[in-house]
Amino acid sequence: MHPQPWYALLSKEREVVLEPEGPEDPTIDYAVVWKQPRGLLKRLPNLKVIFSIGAGVDHILADPTLPDVPIVRVVADNLTQHMVEYVCWRVLDHHRQGRLYRAQQQRRLWHEPAQPPAEAVSVGIMGFGALGRAAARALRGLGFSVNGWSRRPHPMEGVRSFAGQEALTPFLNATDILVVLLPLTAATQGIIDYSLLGRLRRDGPLGGPCLINAGRGRLQREADILRALEEGILKEASLDVFEQEPLARTSPLWEHPRVFITPHAAATSDPVHLVPPMLAQMAAFERGEKLENLVDRAAGY
Amino acid sequence: MHPQPWYALLSKEREVVLEPEGPEDPTIDYAVVWKQPRGLLKRLPNLKVIFSIGAGVDHILADPTLPDVPIVRVVADNLTQHMVEYVCWRVLDHHRQGRLYRAQQQRRLWHEPAQPPAEAVSVGIMGFGALGRAAARALRGLGFSVNGWSRRPHPMEGVRSFAGQEALTPFLNATDILVVLLPLTAATQGIIDYSLLGRLRRDGPLGGPCLINAGRGRLQREADILRALEEGILKEASLDVFEQEPLARTSPLWEHPRVFITPHAAATSDPVHLVPPMLAQMAAFERGEKLENLVDRAAGY
Ligand SMILES: NC(=O)c1ccc[n+]([C@@H]2O[C@H](COP(=O)([O-])OP(=O)(O)OC[C@H]3O[C@@H](n4cnc5c(N)ncnc54)[C@H](OP(=O)(O)O)[C@@H]3O)[C@@H](O)[C@H]2O)c1
Ligand SMILES: NC(=O)c1ccc[n+]([C@@H]2O[C@H](COP(=O)([O-])OP(=O)(O)OC[C@H]3O[C@@H](n4cnc5c(N)ncnc54)[C@H](OP(=O)(O)O)[C@@H]3O)[C@@H](O)[C@H]2O)c1
Repeated sequence: MHPQPWYALLSKEREVVLEPEGPEDPTIDYAVVWKQPRGLLKRLPNLKVIFSIGAGVDHILADPTLPDVPIVRVVADNLTQHMVEYVCWRVLDHHRQGRLYRAQQQRRLWHEPAQPPAEAVSVGIMGFGALGRAAARALRGLGFSVNGWSRRPHPMEGVRSFAGQEALTPFLNATDILVVLLPLTAATQGIIDYSLLGRLRRDGPLGGPCLINAGRGRLQREADILRALEEGILKEASLDVFEQEPLARTSPLWEHPRVFITPHAAATSDPVHLVPPMLAQMAAFERGEKLENLVDRAAGY
Repeated sequence: MHPQPWYALLSKEREVVLEPEGPEDPTIDYAVVWKQPRGLLKRLPNLKVIFSIGAGVDHILADPTLPDVPIVRVVADNLTQHMVEYVCWRVLDHHRQGRLYRAQQQRRLWHEPAQPPAEAVSVGIMGFGALGRAAARALRGLGFSVNGWSRRPHPMEGVRSFAGQEALTPFLNATDILVVLLPLTAATQGIIDYSLLGRLRRDGPLGGPCLINAGRGRLQREADILRALEEGILKEASLDVFEQEPLARTSPLWEHPRVFITPHAAATSDPVHLVPPMLAQMAAFERGEKLENLVDRAAGY
């Protein structure tokens, strides 16, 4: 994330300090942050609100000295739109057998495999929040069967909504393509493990389940994903996020033939679209209005 | 196309003859055909209706001895759904830079290229009929800008409709991703040539135009596509159909790094979904009702 375009756009309306130095900076009211250096925000005694540049706030909450002020996260059409594109792209590539066709092309092989229709394929969205629900609507529009899983139930027409820990196994059992759009919290860290992958539907129409993770890398155990791929428990995976980013050049994921990698690029925060609503929230806050899209610190997202 | 499943389903309600032999067969009322042998239908003196197994009827009309009876073509949700999946899959793979990411992964390269949002990308659909219009609706739902081109105008909300020969150049000039869903007729044969490809928008947000042909192979001149790719006039192509099918093993398309090949598999006619409406049309015809989805022989589709 380059600070320059954020700086340029924010400074049209506000005075901006890039990474305040010194023991204390009492002039700062708002912090706009991505992965802030630990301890930095503690040095701002008059800080009123933290604005996260990303939809996920795990990087912000990871600072044990974080001051106790409201945190506003990003919910924006532009970011949602990019994530919906990414999810539909990856779901369609698994569904329409892109890997198989690319392999056939290399061998100059003209062969048409059986192709189930989208309605026969069940996409399970883990983390049914702003992004998960938007993805669900788009996937429904493309004809897929869609299930959602979240902490609390979110009824949506044409979608089966599963909620809470006890609904996780039934949700996974009904899933051919798992799309992970969870936040990283104490409760979700490492959730995509061998046991979870083993509960996905193995006798579905695609010949095995597929995993798409566009949430956070530390939701997944990469060793377990590799093991599940090897044992035939998992057919294919599209991973946008990784336990460590950038993904180490030595990771076996890079050259696994059934893994597709993007560099945390599913939905990048674009300052052109995200700064105006931030500035609007600052102005609204100063008029005494309520802040929107607040993070629940206890829940961790 | 294997006749067996069609035979099995049709014979539940009708007596079925597979490829009638002999000089004449006066017992046959309806013909259900894909690429019928030339002269075969002429030998059926009491033929009342020809039902095409495909949405395109170029194979049927290619028979110079074709009897002058109504031809019903396929318009079915299941076929349309498969085509919509194919078109969205290919559009998203060009838009989201699938080829670039696959190449980066091979080199273990963690790099995020600029990514325009779908709304900045203009998808032009050539052949704005049953399939083209359904694809347009789905692409609009994914956020793309959509234009359609057809003989007659088809107004659709949120879509720019271009009609007729004089509108072709403005339509192409406004197109980043060209999706061809035309029928093969005397007027459309060879239409995707060097001149047409040269009129696509070259300074669009994807760094060059992309071609997707899921109509018919003989709409395209493959030598021109290869030339346009080499000269940088065309960025990438997804081809489902070819001048000759199966595509010859010697074709340079197979190993072109910017060409993606599927074996005429975009939307395969599924007898389970297509036979019931055919049987219903036969019954309706016998009750004196009008046939639907009739081919206009003069127009050739
Ligand atoms: N790869 C990328 O480029 C990229 C870009 C943007 C965002 N992201 C990731 O996407 C995540 C989701 O974003 P969002 O805007 O959709 O967030 P959100 O609106 O807060 O939604 C989070 C969803 O996860 C559910 N959830 C949280 N903890 C859970 C638990 N323990 N058990 C079950 N469900 C749980 C929530 O349930 P409730 O609905 O019941 O609260 C909610 O449905 C972000 O946190 C970020 O990590 C990635
Ligand atoms: N690859 C596959 O698996 C697959 C599967 C099914 C179908 N197809 C192909 O897809 C084609 C389209 O199917 P469909 O059901 O959408 O057909 P359709 O409903 O008949 O639509 C054809 C469209 O093409 C337009 N058109 C025809 N001739 C034209 C010309 N000379 N100039 C400009 N526009 C012209 C028509 O214009 P008007 O609207 O003005 O009539 C119409 O919009 C089929 O013919 C078939 O070749 C391929």
